Amino acid sequence: MMHWNVYLAGEIHTNWREELKEAADREGLAVRFFSPVTDHAASDACGGHILGAEEQPFWHDRKGAGVNAIRTRPMIEKADVVVVKFGDKYRQWNAAYDAGMASALGKPLIIVHPEEYQHALKEIDAAACAVASEVSQVVEILRYVTRGELV
Amino acid sequence: MMHWNVYLAGEIHTNWREELKEAADREGLAVRFFSPVTDHAASDACGGHILGAEEQPFWHDRKGAGVNAIRTRPMIEKADVVVVKFGDKYRQWNAAYDAGMASALGKPLIIVHPEEYQHALKEIDAAACAVASEVSQVVEILRYVTRGELV
Amino acid sequence: MMHWNVYLAGEIHTNWREELKEAADREGLAVRFFSPVTDHAASDACGGHILGAEEQPFWHDRKGAGVNAIRTRPMIEKADVVVVKFGDKYRQWNAAYDAGMASALGKPLIIVHPEEYQHALKEIDAAACAVASEVSQVVEILRYVTRGELV
Amino acid sequence: MMHWNVYLAGEIHTNWREELKEAADREGLAVRFFSPVTDHAASDACGGHILGAEEQPFWHDRKGAGVNAIRTRPMIEKADVVVVKFGDKYRQWNAAYDAGMASALGKPLIIVHPEEYQHALKEIDAAACAVASEVSQVVEILRYVTRGELV
Amino acid sequence: MMHWNVYLAGEIHTNWREELKEAADREGLAVRFFSPVTDHAASDACGGHILGAEEQPFWHDRKGAGVNAIRTRPMIEKADVVVVKFGDKYRQWNAAYDAGMASALGKPLIIVHPEEYQHALKEIDAAACAVASEVSQVVEILRYVTRGELV
Amino acid sequence: MMHWNVYLAGEIHTNWREELKEAADREGLAVRFFSPVTDHAASDACGGHILGAEEQPFWHDRKGAGVNAIRTRPMIEKADVVVVKFGDKYRQWNAAYDAGMASALGKPLIIVHPEEYQHALKEIDAAACAVASEVSQVVEILRYVTRGELV
Amino acid sequence: MMHWNVYLAGEIHTNWREELKEAADREGLAVRFFSPVTDHAASDACGGHILGAEEQPFWHDRKGAGVNAIRTRPMIEKADVVVVKFGDKYRQWNAAYDAGMASALGKPLIIVHPEEYQHALKEIDAAACAVASEVSQVVEILRYVTRGELV
Amino acid sequence: MMHWNVYLAGEIHTNWREELKEAADREGLAVRFFSPVTDHAASDACGGHILGAEEQPFWHDRKGAGVNAIRTRPMIEKADVVVVKFGDKYRQWNAAYDAGMASALGKPLIIVHPEEYQHALKEIDAAACAVASEVSQVVEILRYVTRGELV
Repeated sequence: MMHWNVYLAGEIHTNWREELKEAADREGLAVRFFSPVTDHAASDACGGHILGAEEQPFWHDRKGAGVNAIRTRPMIEKADVVVVKFGDKYRQWNAAYDAGMASALGKPLIIVHPEEYQHALKEIDAAACAVASEVSQVVEILRYVTRGELV
Repeated sequence: MMHWNVYLAGEIHTNWREELKEAADREGLAVRFFSPVTDHAASDACGGHILGAEEQPFWHDRKGAGVNAIRTRPMIEKADVVVVKFGDKYRQWNAAYDAGMASALGKPLIIVHPEEYQHALKEIDAAACAVASEVSQVVEILRYVTRGELV
Repeated sequence: MMHWNVYLAGEIHTNWREELKEAADREGLAVRFFSPVTDHAASDACGGHILGAEEQPFWHDRKGAGVNAIRTRPMIEKADVVVVKFGDKYRQWNAAYDAGMASALGKPLIIVHPEEYQHALKEIDAAACAVASEVSQVVEILRYVTRGELV
Repeated sequence: MMHWNVYLAGEIHTNWREELKEAADREGLAVRFFSPVTDHAASDACGGHILGAEEQPFWHDRKGAGVNAIRTRPMIEKADVVVVKFGDKYRQWNAAYDAGMASALGKPLIIVHPEEYQHALKEIDAAACAVASEVSQVVEILRYVTRGELV
Repeated sequence: MMHWNVYLAGEIHTNWREELKEAADREGLAVRFFSPVTDHAASDACGGHILGAEEQPFWHDRKGAGVNAIRTRPMIEKADVVVVKFGDKYRQWNAAYDAGMASALGKPLIIVHPEEYQHALKEIDAAACAVASEVSQVVEILRYVTRGELV
Repeated sequence: MMHWNVYLAGEIHTNWREELKEAADREGLAVRFFSPVTDHAASDACGGHILGAEEQPFWHDRKGAGVNAIRTRPMIEKADVVVVKFGDKYRQWNAAYDAGMASALGKPLIIVHPEEYQHALKEIDAAACAVASEVSQVVEILRYVTRGELV
Repeated sequence: MMHWNVYLAGEIHTNWREELKEAADREGLAVRFFSPVTDHAASDACGGHILGAEEQPFWHDRKGAGVNAIRTRPMIEKADVVVVKFGDKYRQWNAAYDAGMASALGKPLIIVHPEEYQHALKEIDAAACAVASEVSQVVEILRYVTRGELV
Repeated sequence: MMHWNVYLAGEIHTNWREELKEAADREGLAVRFFSPVTDHAASDACGGHILGAEEQPFWHDRKGAGVNAIRTRPMIEKADVVVVKFGDKYRQWNAAYDAGMASALGKPLIIVHPEEYQHALKEIDAAACAVASEVSQVVEILRYVTRGELV
């Protein structure tokens, strides 16, 4: 049996990752989840906090983005599947950027988004193996993919 | 000692994979088998079932093929050896497609097919490390390859 | 302006390649077409003819397939776009194999096939950027892709 | 002397590409620009127009995105430099997606955006070789990069 | 949870690696450290000692560098993160060379150096995800990266 | 600590692999050895034995070489270090071929050969990290590389 | 039409390359040939001559092999097809090494050798697209591959 | 005949590139040279000049290094050969970094340095195809490599 590494990109202000992990645990799926740091405040602060404060927001953010990339880049490369969830807050360019990286690296993509974003996300959806609107569908996909079972 | 990942592509309406696994188990070979979902009905239904029904067969199948690719693409990439079996039913273009992917990824190929397909499969056979007509030959190859023993 | 290399795989017993080239010439598209050898008899005979006859069809075909691969493999690698046409004759496993190689190499795929093959080709269609039923649609795609013009 | 391929991704409702090309022409830079189809209507319509109408917007857009990818993917792969401009309209997830692909392919990135998007684009900016706010700065970068001259 | 491979390149005449390992152990971080041989005398002598003495220093060093590369090249390739520390002794071209290799292989880089080297190291710093001046900052980065926690 | 995969190519009519393994075991080195099948008769016979006899030696050998490649190719790809020993019997082109493959795949090479072959092996020696004349030197290299210790 | 780069490796003490080039010229084939330096004396002397004499043959040869690799490695990488000829003199390990490199790089191989070497070259022959015994067969292959014509 | 791209990295305060180009021109070598911007002042100023001044030297240099990388990274990737010259001024970590990148990308390296740096550069020299002490030797190598002639 194969163990699956699944990277969970995108939306960080809801608890969809926990929801997904709990469902996967309940089902006993052979899945290991990887995520970016989802503590929004820590994720924004990490660069300046560790490497020294910056007055200019641009360089403050550059430091933070650099530190976060140390975590996310190897995780995306180790992933067998990349899930990217687009929600209803913020501009979420980073989610789309992660989808682009994953796609260029040949990772199967599962995109999750509310239907209203359908047109705006058409290029990303077209590059995906599956487009879902609910996290529960991702659970079903992972069960099917890892076990070959439809419920 | 090395453990071998072997992906079993192709024919899904006979039990050749089980036959192969049982023989490998009996021999105690250091082999782990990967397979596509071989429940034909589930494999056809998975996209529509999980992601929502489609009226047009083309899009129904697109959804299903996408979901199945989430499983098969990482398995082919993790494989040390890819076995592709062509049988006597259906058009089996997917088997040939998997052989093409495996070949471009540099995976050693073992092709299994009845002799009557010899001419039609000549390009794929020519790209293979071994061309067998019986599953029992695949068992012998795997024993030799993993243990260095001829019986 | 970019010049485009387009590899034309698949069906070799109709004149769809000539049809496509003439249309591209008429339009003055910045396209260079690559093809396998489409003289079926020569393609079958080349190995034995050049490298010496074989009694067994299996080895006769192995020699021929090897010689043909010297031509097709570099052409697929140099292609910007790969078109694969499935027709109504023969088993066409080589067409599917070429699609698999092109896909693993990250080449955008255009698949052409009659509608009746829709289910049998679903995995290959799902990996394609475009699925057409007529060669004239491929001309339109190439005009749009190379010039940005819809007629 | 080297000739440079520069892919211009992102914003398609202003004439920044023409502005950039004219400036590069005026300077006589050894640069060849590649772009997605920037006729917004054609870009949205191409899939359904060539390959047949779809009732559901999701599949209409899937067809269009597929056809556009035939153009953009090889262009990004052939590019020596990728410029991505974020403007003040639309969600622009496709721009971010292209930046992700370019980054994973190891292409040097130049990002152009108004200052107000600084925080939202921090991960993409951090992956870039240069972050500009004006197209004229991109001209200056290209002159410097291709000629070694600062004005 | 993911386990992280961290390669520690650069300065070999201080005990910064031990300091870092002890801190990581104290924190219980899921990190495995890889290092070049840091016994300076052994590292210089290994080639001649094992493979036979050389009169000319150039060939003596060629043999030693070859033997050391057997260790360091696979370690850099297996690394998820590469830390390169520049100190105040020696020319340290090998540290910069390792940074170049790691960068071309797409590894996230953490550079550690005293502030006075800021200008001389600007290209390497610009390619890095993080630039630190103290080893304790590397510990903090590794804790944040592997656990998502800021202290 | 890292575990090392070491592929042992070349000479198969002496017991140098056993000698090396015993020494590595005695030292308790963190090394896992991979080898081609070294039973010369089995290695020659495997193709015809499993896949059916061939009258022509050329095709008999083609079958055998194909089956052996299923074993050796993945082993070379998984190797961290490749050792190639040239002895005093046979033409040993396969040893040189394996060295070429390993080199193109970026594997550190250790070449072992009697001094008299120095001129004939100059290109291969030049691509190697270490050139030894005795198997005992390979043991010393592996101890140094895996443990950092010179004796 | 495609132009073909053909690298001619192996035997350097006969004039097979000139013979091949003349035949290709006569036919007007769209082929560009690349070769190692075939002036045996210059090839042996180049390192010491340019970079300074060495007393030890091992280092003299190391220098020469290094300088020759500057020429041959990029040529093999640029080649669409690699021809390797084994003759009746010398050990020719370099020819086998080049075949291994070309194979790992995915280049189609044409091997030329007298029949008596069939068993000794079986692994290399098995990796080849074509095995010829005469240079005139290589001409025929190149005509067929580049023009699709059998004579 | 092949045309050669040669990237000239390292020392920028002497006129060794001009010397090399003139000699190559005189000989009529089929060589095209690529270089970083060698106007030291422009190279330092480019980032701040084009993208806006920075108060902190660290960020001033980050901007400059980013802009210079847009030029140098594609040039190194397009190079067939990379020459790196170490001189007697500055720390030259960037030269060593470029050597590391070129090496990881598989480019043949020619290193030029005064003999006194032999020990400090031993790892880089060991990764090189040729180590010269004079620019005139590089000319001789390029003549030999591109023409096969020793003078």
